[in-house]
This record gives sequence, C-alpha cells and structure tokens, in this order.
Amino acid sequence: MNPKSAEILCIGTEILMGDIVNTNAAYIAKELTVLGINTYHQSVVGDNPGRLKEALDLAFSRADIVITTGGLGPTYDDLSKETIAGWFGRKLVLHQPSLDAIVRYHEKSGKPMTDNNRKQAYMPEGSAIFDNPSGTAPGCAIEQDGKIAIMLPGPPSEMKPMFDNCAAPYLMKLSGETLVSHTLHFYGIGESALEDRLRALMEESKNPTVAPYAKTGEVQLRVTAKAAAKEAAEALIKPMVERLQAEVGEFIYGVDVGDLQTAAVKLLLEKGLQAAAAESCTGGYVAKRLTDVSGSSAAFQYGFVTYSNEAKVKMLGVSPETLEKYSAISPETAAEMAAGARRVSGADIAVAVTGNAGPAPSEGKAVGEVYVAVDSPWYNETQRLDFFRHDEDAREYIRYLASSRALYLVLKAAKLFS
Amino acid sequence: MNPKSAEILCIGTEILMGDIVNTNAAYIAKELTVLGINTYHQSVVGDNPGRLKEALDLAFSRADIVITTGGLGPTYDDLSKETIAGWFGRKLVLHQPSLDAIVRYHEKSGKPMTDNNRKQAYMPEGSAIFDNPSGTAPGCAIEQDGKIAIMLPGPPSEMKPMFDNCAAPYLMKLSGETLVSHTLHFYGIGESALEDRLRALMEESKNPTVAPYAKTGEVQLRVTAKAAAKEAAEALIKPMVERLQAEVGEFIYGVDVGDLQTAAVKLLLEKGLQAAAAESCTGGYVAKRLTDVSGSSAAFQYGFVTYSNEAKVKMLGVSPETLEKYSAISPETAAEMAAGARRVSGADIAVAVTGNAGPAPSEGKAVGEVYVAVDSPWYNETQRLDFFRHDEDAREYIRYLASSRALYLVLKAAKLFS
Repeated sequence: MNPKSAEILCIGTEILMGDIVNTNAAYIAKELTVLGINTYHQSVVGDNPGRLKEALDLAFSRADIVITTGGLGPTYDDLSKETIAGWFGRKLVLHQPSLDAIVRYHEKSGKPMTDNNRKQAYMPEGSAIFDNPSGTAPGCAIEQDGKIAIMLPGPPSEMKPMFDNCAAPYLMKLSGETLVSHTLHFYGIGESALEDRLRALMEESKNPTVAPYAKTGEVQLRVTAKAAAKEAAEALIKPMVERLQAEVGEFIYGVDVGDLQTAAVKLLLEKGLQAAAAESCTGGYVAKRLTDVSGSSAAFQYGFVTYSNEAKVKMLGVSPETLEKYSAISPETAAEMAAGARRVSGADIAVAVTGNAGPAPSEGKAVGEVYVAVDSPWYNETQRLDFFRHDEDAREYIRYLASSRALYLVLKAAKLFS
Repeated sequence: MNPKSAEILCIGTEILMGDIVNTNAAYIAKELTVLGINTYHQSVVGDNPGRLKEALDLAFSRADIVITTGGLGPTYDDLSKETIAGWFGRKLVLHQPSLDAIVRYHEKSGKPMTDNNRKQAYMPEGSAIFDNPSGTAPGCAIEQDGKIAIMLPGPPSEMKPMFDNCAAPYLMKLSGETLVSHTLHFYGIGESALEDRLRALMEESKNPTVAPYAKTGEVQLRVTAKAAAKEAAEALIKPMVERLQAEVGEFIYGVDVGDLQTAAVKLLLEKGLQAAAAESCTGGYVAKRLTDVSGSSAAFQYGFVTYSNEAKVKMLGVSPETLEKYSAISPETAAEMAAGARRVSGADIAVAVTGNAGPAPSEGKAVGEVYVAVDSPWYNETQRLDFFRHDEDAREYIRYLASSRALYLVLKAAKLFS
C-alpha cells in the first residue's frame, strides 16, 4: 500500500470552545507533507460520539487515512477509542503492556492511579499499539479494508513524540520505506529570497525533498529522503546538502542545530569561550535566549540590562560624553556597551543592543532604529538595523529580531576563535 | 433573529500544509462562546474553489452562520470572496470606500499598489463591509434566507481587530444587544481550585457570564454581560465583580490589567517607583518581561544576569562565604542577590531569582528547586518554589513560573508604598 491522502480530525470540546489553540493539526500536517501524504481537510469536533461518528463517515469518504488527536484521556467524556473502534466494528480489549506502563508511570510520578486510568489500557482489538512514555494514554492504529485510523493523544507533549516515534514509522512501513531528515539553518536571508535562489532545485527534487520552514527572523530548509534503509536515505541526502552548501552556504549557520541560541551556546562550549550581553532595548531578551539552552552556564555568566543612561554608565562604564553627544541610541553607545560588558565580565565575546523598540520615538530616534555591537579580540563590529513595523506586535518583533542579530554576532565572533 | 450556532471555516493551503498554526479558529471560537453562539465544527480547506464550495454546503447544512478566514488576499489563488458570493448567487461589485482605503494604505506604507490590490475592493453585492485598518483586505457579511456568511482576512493581526470591531457587533446587532466584558486577573490559585470555589456562581450566572481562562501560572475570569446598551451591561457586571472581589479577592491582582508584567509596571509608574532584578536561573526572563511593557524604562533600569558565582559576587556583592556555606541555590543567596541589586541600582524594590531550572541536578539541588527574594524598605521575603516537572518543556516552564513569582512580588512590594 502506498498511502496518498489523509485527513486530520482533532477531537475536543476545549478546541471548539477556543480554550486551546490547535497546534496538533499544524504539526501533523507538516509531518504528513514531509512523508509525501496529501491532506485536503482538517476538522475539529467536540467530545460527542454522534458527531464524531459523522465526522469519521465524512473523513473516510474522502481519504484512506484519518489521524485523530484527543479523547484518549481517563475521564468519562473521553470517547474517541470507543467510538472509532465501534466505527470499525471492533471491541476494546485489555492491553497488558499498556496497563503495566500506566502503573509504572503513576509510581514514577507519584500521582495516584484511579480506575479510570485502567480504562486507558483498553485498546481496539487487533490494533497496533503506540507507547506513550510522556503520559498515560497509549495511541494506536487500526487498519481494515484499506482504511486506516490513527489515534493520538491530545496533549502536544505526548502527541508529538508519539507521531515521530510511532505513527510516522507506521505510515512509512505501509510503503516499505524509511525517512531521514536533516535541517539546514539560515540567517540573513528571507524565505522568499531563498526560494527564489533555489526554486528550480526545490521543484526538481523529489527524493530528497527540500522544504522551507520560515521562523521569525530565520529560515530552515529540511532535506528529507525516503529509502529502504537509513543508510541509503543518508546517502541520498549528502549530495543535496553539499549542493546547498555550495549555492547558499554563506547564509547557513548550522545543520540540525535547533536555533541561533542553541548553535551559539554549543559553539561557545566547544571552544571553551565565555560570552556576555549588555542590553538596552532588548531588556534581557538576549540573556534569556542564551539561558534557554541548558548547559549555558558554562558559556554565559554575565548579563547587563541597562535600561537607562545612568545604568549604562554605572554598570558598563559607557562615557557620559558619548551618551550626551551621540545619544543612547547610537553606534557609539552600542560599541561602548559591548566593550564595557567584555571588560567588566572578562568574557571573550560581548554583544550589546541599544535602540528604540517603540511604540513612540525616543531620544529623537524613530521606532525600529537599533544598533547591535560585538566586541571580541578578533572581531569588532557595530551594525544598524531598521525595522519598519508599527502594529501592536511591533515591539515584540523588533526586540526578538534585534536579539537574534546579537546571537548571530556571538556565533560569528566565536567562529573566529581557534 | 437570535443566532445560536456557527461554524468556523478556515481557508488556506498554508494551514493544510502545516506551515502556519491556525490560531484564528481558537480566537473566533472563544469569542463566539462569549457571544453565546455555539460552535460544533471547525474545518480547514485549501485555496480550492471546488472543495470550498463543498465545505460551504456542509457547513450551512449544519449551522446558520459560517465564519471564514483567509483567501481575501490580492493573488490569483485567493478565491474566497468569489466562491462564497457565488454560493449565494451574488456578483462582486466595486466598493469605492474600500478602494480609497486601499489606495491610502499603500500611500502610507510606501508599498507599491498593484492591479491585484484593486481586486480586493470588489465585494459581494449587498454585503455589509468590514473595514481593515491593519491591512488591505476588507471583510464582509452576507445575510440571505436565514444564512449568514462572515468573511475575515487570514492574518491574525488583521482578523482579530476586524472580528472585535466589526463581526462581533454585527452578530450582536442581529440579536439587538451589546456586549461588555471585564477581566479579573488571578495569581496564586489554580484554575481548578478557583472553579471549585466558584462553581455554583459560574453555573448560575447567565448574564453576566463568568468564564475562566487559564494561562501558564495564572488564571483570568472574564465577566461578560449582554444588554441593550453599554451602560446597562456595565450595571449588570458591577455587582458580579464586587461579589468575586468578596469571595476570592485575595487572589485578584488586577482588573483589565493584561498580565503580571503590565500590572507591575503600571503600578510602579503610578507610584513613581523603580524596580531592579537580579537573575540566576531565569537568566534575564524577569527583565525581558518587565521591558516587554512599553514605557517600562521609567520604572526599570537595572537588570543583573548573574549566571555564575563569580558574577553574583562581582555584580551584586553576594558574599563568597554565603555561596560556599549555603550554595548558590539557597534562600540566603537569593536574599543577598536582591539586597545587592537594590544597593547597586538604587531602586526602591529589587527581586532576585536563583534555582535549578534543569535538566540535571545542580549544586546538589534537585531540578525545580527555586528561590525568589524581594528586597524593599517595607517588605522583605524569600520564597521557595518547587516544580515537579521533567519533560522537555520543563526548563521553559520552571523559568517562566519563577519569573512570574518575581513579578508578583514586585507588585506586592509596590502596593505597600504610599
């Protein structure tokens, strides 16, 4: 069987009420695209067996595969398994390994186990069971008469690993293939510019595929190959990654590195370097993002949030004359902030950010005028950024992108150390 | 007419591909719930006229109101308006005020206007037009034979204000009513504990309704009244807010204040106070959140990110003996960090956070052991927090909740100033 079309059916009254955003549908949709499975419909229904049954009728009239999320919990209104098993004419039977796992989960977490949790170990007869190491609800797949239902739990922290570790391999096994992906991380080029440069390559590439993922301020390209075995898939990917390195390598800051802060901290740790940050308009965002990365304490120890002129003088030794002559929002102040942060902290690399993140002009500077400076023994630079955005999200946008540039400059400076 | 049931139909191939998360559906669903309109289905289809027409057939077979998002853009594949107008047997006609607005929008933003943008001013004949001050695509509503289609643009920054300012009043006008809401912000009580205490009140309250919104680490109650006029709705809300203040007032930190950081900055500004933050495990998160608030520079000038013992000694004057005797993760260190931050910055209030945000034990302390201290002339306290979470999101969760506690303590300290 070579599955070609799937529908995503998310079950939960809390989604219908708008209490939670349905991130599961986007996650599954993206992964199905990578698997080469088309999706033409996504639907949401509440925890209502009648409407769920109707939704199954409709979805299976349009597609061979229906992937559901939600309704696998322990409470009385969690009825997905019963309803979907019933749709296939199957009973629920005790799956002892799942019960054992649920017992172990409760022992480990110290939460009391109720009779309802036992219910979660009853699975559709003859289904393929998907373990849930992150929670109590196992998932499963039923295949019958060319129709496949895949049931996943609702919480994204349980659904995502189960999709990756169980559902995706299950779907690939149907086609007898294995899937391998690598992600190239780009900074300094927009998604549309990157697509313009790589359009022919992306369109002609079927295996591996090359798919762009835009994130705020950066772009990722995921290169994905299908093959009978992992090694063969890797062999398909390798020349494509080399080709991308040759064509747009100047914008690639890493492969499979997660994000800018993770890449920066990883390189700092590898090289035994220390970074410091001095922040005005970003107000701690650079430090926050660096310390998002576990293990960052060995690479980042000093952050200075200097949100006033006085603080810049007192904490970083910025000269009052510079502030007076050029203002706090100037390349001169940014450079002195970075130099001061490196001097006070003794770090190898320091970055500084100063600017106007809005919403009103400040120090005579327009909203969106930002300076980012880096100070290190080998590399010193101050860059000016201009953001032309004035909506209600502009402040967050400007602060985030300015902090991204600071992280990128840390990475760039760290690369120059041996 | 008194509309009772609506469906949400989001149009966009980028949603089906998983390129974007469908936050629009959640937003509209929540607002419909507040308006007293039930939603039993949400659907997503691509930019495909055939499938959109089928989706309309289905949605209008189940509900009287269908609210769509997306497909109002200027490009050739944006076909929502044409298809939906066609479903009602209507033509598109030029709406001159919308064309004028589109011309003005391009003049103001400096972006070149194309012929395609003119297309955006063609609206279904006889529809009610919804202005779009945040973009170029106007929305609209068609009412015919008891069926109503409401078309909104896809970008959330355009959709949300249009829903609030145009679609919601349009729906309320159908029932001849006005809607007013106020939000009470709670800290220190969980959603289920709050619901337990207020269950009877919440269930018996029909006008105003009282609806909880759980956010990470805090809870909001939205009190919403319907009446013929705004004043009458406010008069319905007032006694309910007073009753909630009487019953659970000790957990309310504000009304219509947005979030902890906004409430804290607002109070600091009102009282002319300065706050400072010293952060170890939160690594700048407290500073970042305070400076999220525009205008915070008058209330927050000094942030110290001291991610090592050396930085704590050097930047904050924490005594090496304290670090040696009690470790960096201790109430003693937290208190000295807060005192040091206040001394160095000259601020009125300083908070400090130190702890282990994971993923591994550190300084002999378990993941999730955190101390938060506040130092001010009137109020000094150090609190211990313990988080029992070990999944992949634990680090962000612990850091966020620890920073929330720090913000809450700033607020608590600021309240004691006259």
